[in-house]
Amino acid sequence: MSSAPAPAAPAARVQEHISRTFDRHLGQVRRFVRQVSISGEDRGIGEMADLVAARLREIGARAEVIATARHPVVYGEIDAGAPRTLLLYGMYDVQPVVGERWSVSDPFGAELVEGHPQGPSIVARGVYNSKGPLACFLNVLESIREVEGRLPLNVRFMIEGEEELGSPSLPAFVTARRASLAADAGYFPGFEQDATGNAVLRLGCKGELFFELVCRGGAWGGPTRRAVHGSTAVWYASPPVRLAQAIASMFSLDQRTVTVEGFRDGAEPPGAEDEGLLAALAGRFDPRTQLETDEVRRFTHDLWGVDLLRKYVYEPSLNVDGIVSGHPGEGTKTILPHEARAKMDVRFVPRMRADRVVRRLRDHLDRHGLGDIELRVDHAFPWSKVSVTEAPVRAMVETCRELGFEPEIWPLQASSAPFYLLTDELGMPFVTGGLGHGARAHSADEYATVAGMELYERGAAIFLYRLREILG
Amino acid sequence: MSSAPAPAAPAARVQEHISRTFDRHLGQVRRFVRQVSISGEDRGIGEMADLVAARLREIGARAEVIATARHPVVYGEIDAGAPRTLLLYGMYDVQPVVGERWSVSDPFGAELVEGHPQGPSIVARGVYNSKGPLACFLNVLESIREVEGRLPLNVRFMIEGEEELGSPSLPAFVTARRASLAADAGYFPGFEQDATGNAVLRLGCKGELFFELVCRGGAWGGPTRRAVHGSTAVWYASPPVRLAQAIASMFSLDQRTVTVEGFRDGAEPPGAEDEGLLAALAGRFDPRTQLETDEVRRFTHDLWGVDLLRKYVYEPSLNVDGIVSGHPGEGTKTILPHEARAKMDVRFVPRMRADRVVRRLRDHLDRHGLGDIELRVDHAFPWSKVSVTEAPVRAMVETCRELGFEPEIWPLQASSAPFYLLTDELGMPFVTGGLGHGARAHSADEYATVAGMELYERGAAIFLYRLREILG
Repeated sequence: MSSAPAPAAPAARVQEHISRTFDRHLGQVRRFVRQVSISGEDRGIGEMADLVAARLREIGARAEVIATARHPVVYGEIDAGAPRTLLLYGMYDVQPVVGERWSVSDPFGAELVEGHPQGPSIVARGVYNSKGPLACFLNVLESIREVEGRLPLNVRFMIEGEEELGSPSLPAFVTARRASLAADAGYFPGFEQDATGNAVLRLGCKGELFFELVCRGGAWGGPTRRAVHGSTAVWYASPPVRLAQAIASMFSLDQRTVTVEGFRDGAEPPGAEDEGLLAALAGRFDPRTQLETDEVRRFTHDLWGVDLLRKYVYEPSLNVDGIVSGHPGEGTKTILPHEARAKMDVRFVPRMRADRVVRRLRDHLDRHGLGDIELRVDHAFPWSKVSVTEAPVRAMVETCRELGFEPEIWPLQASSAPFYLLTDELGMPFVTGGLGHGARAHSADEYATVAGMELYERGAAIFLYRLREILG
Repeated sequence: MSSAPAPAAPAARVQEHISRTFDRHLGQVRRFVRQVSISGEDRGIGEMADLVAARLREIGARAEVIATARHPVVYGEIDAGAPRTLLLYGMYDVQPVVGERWSVSDPFGAELVEGHPQGPSIVARGVYNSKGPLACFLNVLESIREVEGRLPLNVRFMIEGEEELGSPSLPAFVTARRASLAADAGYFPGFEQDATGNAVLRLGCKGELFFELVCRGGAWGGPTRRAVHGSTAVWYASPPVRLAQAIASMFSLDQRTVTVEGFRDGAEPPGAEDEGLLAALAGRFDPRTQLETDEVRRFTHDLWGVDLLRKYVYEPSLNVDGIVSGHPGEGTKTILPHEARAKMDVRFVPRMRADRVVRRLRDHLDRHGLGDIELRVDHAFPWSKVSVTEAPVRAMVETCRELGFEPEIWPLQASSAPFYLLTDELGMPFVTGGLGHGARAHSADEYATVAGMELYERGAAIFLYRLREILG
């Protein structure tokens, strides 16, 4: 990682072509985000999988839509006759929009907002997470083929439609198709510049456990089969109160501590490489920008610098995604509900294991006299982590530098993705991200800037040629 | 209250006429419940008010639909040229059905279920609470006029469409029309036999305070304007966790005690009349029947007999009607919500006051470091209470006895209604109830038995003649 060499000639030519044809490329992004593909609501999934396969064929790939237990995986291949192969892992599904207040009329309208605070942007579900980056990456492959005739690497594609559900079908898919997924490196595309333009690179992700707590009336008390009149709360116990007690019992009042005994069991402290990365990061990371971006007024912990970053990267989190009990609508309905449910997730850090966390949560409820509360695991997958020394990471760092950005390198991202399937199951070096800027994943007014998308594409072209050089 | 005298001749004739024409009467009940009238959703209110007014005119009343700030009151009068006047207070609105699982295809279908465990019954929203009893009472007036030509009492009608909203417009209505509501006694019709056939009479009701707790991100932490990605819970605090802490802080773990300091301030213990009633009740009341009816397996308190009844009647309750936060739908949406809301109600007992309870709740939140949680009062109204010695109560007791039932007399009902408007604002003696059986108010499969409705009507005929005698 010495000073950046001059760009390779093909990458320069491709970048020029990208800039010249970017209007067309942006059209491909909008085509992808206009197709609704909400995995959690089974909306538009088949249509989106077909669209992705069609796009792969347009850029010269062999592509097929492969059924799974739930939503299909789009598999594809471009054999460039190259000595090395890249596995492109992507996702074509998105989060629901129900309950969100968007400033554009249609979250799937792919509207170009000229006056966006970050500059002209597409404001739409999926444009940042993650159909936008996927569409841009495919545009780059198309440009390379148009300019150079052939790609510097063979590319295999595994593009799933269940990422937002925790990728339940992907492990079996990977196991069954190990041979056709073999590659020298893996890549998941993303727009990873922050709101101030810093290039950000994250060397892995936390594991995820998504579960539900369900409290219903039973032997402990409370209505068992239906809500009863609210006035009977004078002599019957309440499932929503009991669920609130369960949730409250898991946190200190200031929410700085998860009070589930053994919750962090197995968590390991940062090693030397990561401590070095955190120290470098602390000099650049601006906590105020983070708070402003998320519209939050303070961090839970009174920490700054390396200590704040270490919390973020190396602390597991316990989160309440939603609570539902009783009458969901407007107006008064005076009932004592028979059921209360909370959806919750744990993001766990290296060496922690989902099955152990589940046992600790179960033990906690039992010890607190809440043994009747059901803990239903929806899904879980492990953390994943790579080193700065691995080939695709080095290629991405050099890409950033070539375009004038010294990347902020994070040992981990706090959010989760099944990258372990590439790093641990398939055993390949891996990197995620790229240049470009977007934000508000899983939130209203998700967006990506137009200028950022063009920059992403130019970077991706460089990345592919650099990766070929480094892989040798 | 010596042994029951023989029925008055007119009442006997009217009862015979009721039994002969009951099929037609049941048709009137079904006509009322078939008209949707959900006050909380503004559905069918105008149509229902017009239907009630039309029915009043059919039975010979002068009737008008009087606008209020929200839903109209149906006011009516029958001048029978009698020396005494009864004020009939009724309601034409019902609870929502959303989220409930009914065994009939349409909660407003007024379906006759022949095989109902309690005998042939109408299973429908409002047939028990309270359009069924209202329709039956109007049937009785019609029968009296058909058989006897004139009523034993003048009757005034005040039938509101906001009872399930806490009657927000009724106090102003009563204040504005005090003169036209003047009467010697008040009555609210109901089917008050329990599932084993016991006749039940309740001498008043608890007060009600309905409020919402709203927790949003702010200076204390948490997302302020929109949900953010769930993984950021590692360094941001959570509004739903904070709301759960607020709710949990208000109850002991076993839910036997409301731990809000001063919550019961002003509550007075039962007087001699009520202790006597409770003692008599304890010999008859079967807690197991109550548990079976409500499908609950145990009471919160390990109490039986008078102690259990005293709790029910003289203990204020704090109840969670519903909680909403985050993604309401199916599937996973991994977010850190910016808002959590709980709808709650307090049922408070004699000498407690809603404004004081609100202050105690506010103080409790502030003292627990939860001062940012907003407490929004939706509505409140006082408790109301009458004595067994008052004329309409005596008339109702004698009615039950004449038909072979020795009533269980409860000093209060735990649920609430704005009866204080009659007892305290208009200052008249008052009674609620009647024979007949129904159940599942505010719940799926609300029902009333056909045999019970006929018995109610026969009792109501007796009641009117007895009341005329007692009023003198």
